[in-house]
Amino acid sequence: MKYRSTVTPKLHSLNTLNPQVKAVEYAVRGPIVIKAGEIERYLQEGGKKPFTEVIKANIGDAHAMGQQPITFLRQVVALCTFPELLDSPSFPKDAKWRARRILQSCGGQSIEGMFWSYSASKGVDCIRQDIAAYIEQRDQGVPANWENIFLTTGASDGIVSILRLLVSGQAHARTGVMIPIPQYPLYSAAIAEMDAVQVNYYLDEDNCWALDVHELHRAYQTAKEHCQPRVLCIINPGNPTGQVQSKKCIKDVLHFAYEENLFVMADEVYQDNVYAPDCQFHSFKKVLYEMGPEYFNSVELASFHSSSKGYTGECGFRGGFMEIVNLDPEVKSQLVKMLSVRLCPPVTGQAAMDVIVNPPQPDEPSHGQFYKEKGLVLGALADKAKLTEHILNAVPGIKCNPVQGAMYAFPRIFIPPRAVEEAQALGMQPDMMYCLRLLEETGICVVPGSGFGQREGSYHFRMTILPSAEKLKVLLEKVHDFHIKFLNEYSALDEAQRSVS
Amino acid sequence: MKYRSTVTPKLHSLNTLNPQVKAVEYAVRGPIVIKAGEIERYLQEGGKKPFTEVIKANIGDAHAMGQQPITFLRQVVALCTFPELLDSPSFPKDAKWRARRILQSCGGQSIEGMFWSYSASKGVDCIRQDIAAYIEQRDQGVPANWENIFLTTGASDGIVSILRLLVSGQAHARTGVMIPIPQYPLYSAAIAEMDAVQVNYYLDEDNCWALDVHELHRAYQTAKEHCQPRVLCIINPGNPTGQVQSKKCIKDVLHFAYEENLFVMADEVYQDNVYAPDCQFHSFKKVLYEMGPEYFNSVELASFHSSSKGYTGECGFRGGFMEIVNLDPEVKSQLVKMLSVRLCPPVTGQAAMDVIVNPPQPDEPSHGQFYKEKGLVLGALADKAKLTEHILNAVPGIKCNPVQGAMYAFPRIFIPPRAVEEAQALGMQPDMMYCLRLLEETGICVVPGSGFGQREGSYHFRMTILPSAEKLKVLLEKVHDFHIKFLNEYSALDEAQRSVS
Repeated sequence: MKYRSTVTPKLHSLNTLNPQVKAVEYAVRGPIVIKAGEIERYLQEGGKKPFTEVIKANIGDAHAMGQQPITFLRQVVALCTFPELLDSPSFPKDAKWRARRILQSCGGQSIEGMFWSYSASKGVDCIRQDIAAYIEQRDQGVPANWENIFLTTGASDGIVSILRLLVSGQAHARTGVMIPIPQYPLYSAAIAEMDAVQVNYYLDEDNCWALDVHELHRAYQTAKEHCQPRVLCIINPGNPTGQVQSKKCIKDVLHFAYEENLFVMADEVYQDNVYAPDCQFHSFKKVLYEMGPEYFNSVELASFHSSSKGYTGECGFRGGFMEIVNLDPEVKSQLVKMLSVRLCPPVTGQAAMDVIVNPPQPDEPSHGQFYKEKGLVLGALADKAKLTEHILNAVPGIKCNPVQGAMYAFPRIFIPPRAVEEAQALGMQPDMMYCLRLLEETGICVVPGSGFGQREGSYHFRMTILPSAEKLKVLLEKVHDFHIKFLNEYSALDEAQRSVS
Repeated sequence: MKYRSTVTPKLHSLNTLNPQVKAVEYAVRGPIVIKAGEIERYLQEGGKKPFTEVIKANIGDAHAMGQQPITFLRQVVALCTFPELLDSPSFPKDAKWRARRILQSCGGQSIEGMFWSYSASKGVDCIRQDIAAYIEQRDQGVPANWENIFLTTGASDGIVSILRLLVSGQAHARTGVMIPIPQYPLYSAAIAEMDAVQVNYYLDEDNCWALDVHELHRAYQTAKEHCQPRVLCIINPGNPTGQVQSKKCIKDVLHFAYEENLFVMADEVYQDNVYAPDCQFHSFKKVLYEMGPEYFNSVELASFHSSSKGYTGECGFRGGFMEIVNLDPEVKSQLVKMLSVRLCPPVTGQAAMDVIVNPPQPDEPSHGQFYKEKGLVLGALADKAKLTEHILNAVPGIKCNPVQGAMYAFPRIFIPPRAVEEAQALGMQPDMMYCLRLLEETGICVVPGSGFGQREGSYHFRMTILPSAEKLKVLLEKVHDFHIKFLNEYSALDEAQRSVS
């Protein structure tokens, strides 16, 4: 037997680890959130801070922020889980009807047939059919084929699966993936892990974070010098920007994708979260259809949706789906094979998704309550979107674009040059230092803009608009006071007022 | 605008696809299962076959085969999903108590606190603590630290995560991953996708599929010539073999891993599925502990468990966990980061896992029913394991090792040389041809041994022992008749009797 010293160095260390895993970053649950958890525990154990609670505005987790779940959705999932409840008089008929239908489509050949287990890897057939019907209605008649719908474990799972399918990390043919900056860091994380090339296109902050197709061209041409750009990722409504794309913009993007042979990944998980009265959600697929068969029959597209956002906010069930358009049949078979290795998405998430695409109809008993609850959630979000924008824009040195949709504000913050230097001396991103101080001094947890990407020399943070109106006001007032104090500390109040306006 | 012909070739075709995805194979839901689905639909639509139903013995999906879920587990998950039920008199107190506790640990800082949403990426704290307590009890006092427990989306997710962490596909340092042959094809699929090197070690069919440490040495030495073996995967109880490893064997394996600096991945998802009276499940961690601190403080180990197997068979909730031992703290941080990108495992699966590790105690109201149901399931499985072995061994040309544990029989089948030639002429694996004919002629769906790996020139299939006893008997009799007919067709009955015995 070989001799080994008592202080054994681990066989697997950072040195031997998969370098692509090391390259991954994910700020939404990154260092600042870990710090927030530590402070929270410290407070719970009786520790003292200048505040009594940590407000987590770092992640789009509606229920954790006190939003009530949609009753009907929870009823359907509970009925599917414990079918004895199908006999209970306290559950409405329409919920029971849906649960029975899902269970029947789920169990397959079992005689009992009423206990869900593994589903097909693509998802339960009747749910895929419901989703296709929903998409046709949403897109005013544009055809949707249920065979092109795949249930996923949240939208993240679908996005990663499609990227893995299309992206090759091989040295001689590294795939370029175009992503917006700022972006949702799942994209950069997946690209790093797959050893693909991240190709940044910058959204136009001065134009309410709109996507400018000239910038797409610039990014594409630059990238072509060192990789093969194949995939174009879009997030609409935008995360973290809250921007809602116009139909004109989507057309330009699709035309560009058509010309440059790019696979379009449309992250449309916030499709139900549009608040600005002059904005409307247009699906990429619908716009593609309107551009005519030359486009509709050729541009390859995947669209992603989720049960975690919208008005349901069901993050824990991990529900989601993707629709693929124009995928080569052989490539589709490869996708199915890849999905089958992971067996199936959670059935609870599939059922949650079914309720979203197949809500109670006017003649069904749950219709009233469902739409009342939905309206309350979306109404409150719209109010909080406005409130957030207004209060932030009243702070000297903070400028916030309108929160047209999604669940986040991504304000630009002025950080005085001396503070920037201080951060750099600490080996820290300036906005990371800012957010850490905000957390330490006020208990508010937001994510630094550097976690999403931003133009060199500009600084931001992302905050959710999910806390209750009351708590959100407290949060925003604390940000206001903190920011002024921060500026004063560097005697930079006047400078800030001139700089960001 | 560029001109494009009307019959547009897809931009992304098999040629441009990620080559690692193309290399993936997964027989458990592969071509034969797709074919079975087609036949099923054909029958449903009134088509005629020599049988009236397809019996799917291809996948370990207990509820689809008519096994009843454990009532208590479903109650807890339903209560967590729809907390209004906490006021219902028709749910037992112990189920309510568990649901409340999970929800409280789940919701974090929300005042309402009773609606689960995202959990921490590692899983709900109180569930991780319950799992650690369960492991300590299972391993008769060997310490388990809850900070080393991570909830996963089924065991597959944990296995893939650990492999991704450890495995590098980079040309100059390709990682070798040692896997048993036959294996569960998740392993080969993940290795192919990550561009690592699959290092086969063969289990000893003549010795009831036992693992022979000399074979490990052989495989390791051979592999070292072309890759860097870093990981050793073990499946115990075995899938597809049904073998249960002795403590002596586990010690030998751990000693080998210690000497050769291998990270041990112990797939122990069938730990509750041991039927043979002379066999017992020993966890790799417990045996490692018994080998003394020199081993226990140095061998890096990950053990995986699942809610999909055992006596619960809850496949749809996608519950699972892993325990990691001796991981370098920096590597552990990287693992946490990687898990956080996917946000969290489904909360329903986490709750299901909690019931498994924290079942009703003798003084709790659900204790009686719980253990009655558990006993029924495990008793029936033990009977069916015996039944399967006996009936298969009575077929000339079929030899089946005892099904000591897990949920599968993996009998060796004699395929006459002329049939082998015929298959090869069709460009098909001989056992694939056999299984396809079995399906077409009898409606029985099993998976060819080539999907799991087998010694050159030997043929097998994997079948689950999950159908009801009555249906299982029918299935086995049909296999019996089919096999004899198949042999007669090639005038090979005598040859078969001599060959496999």
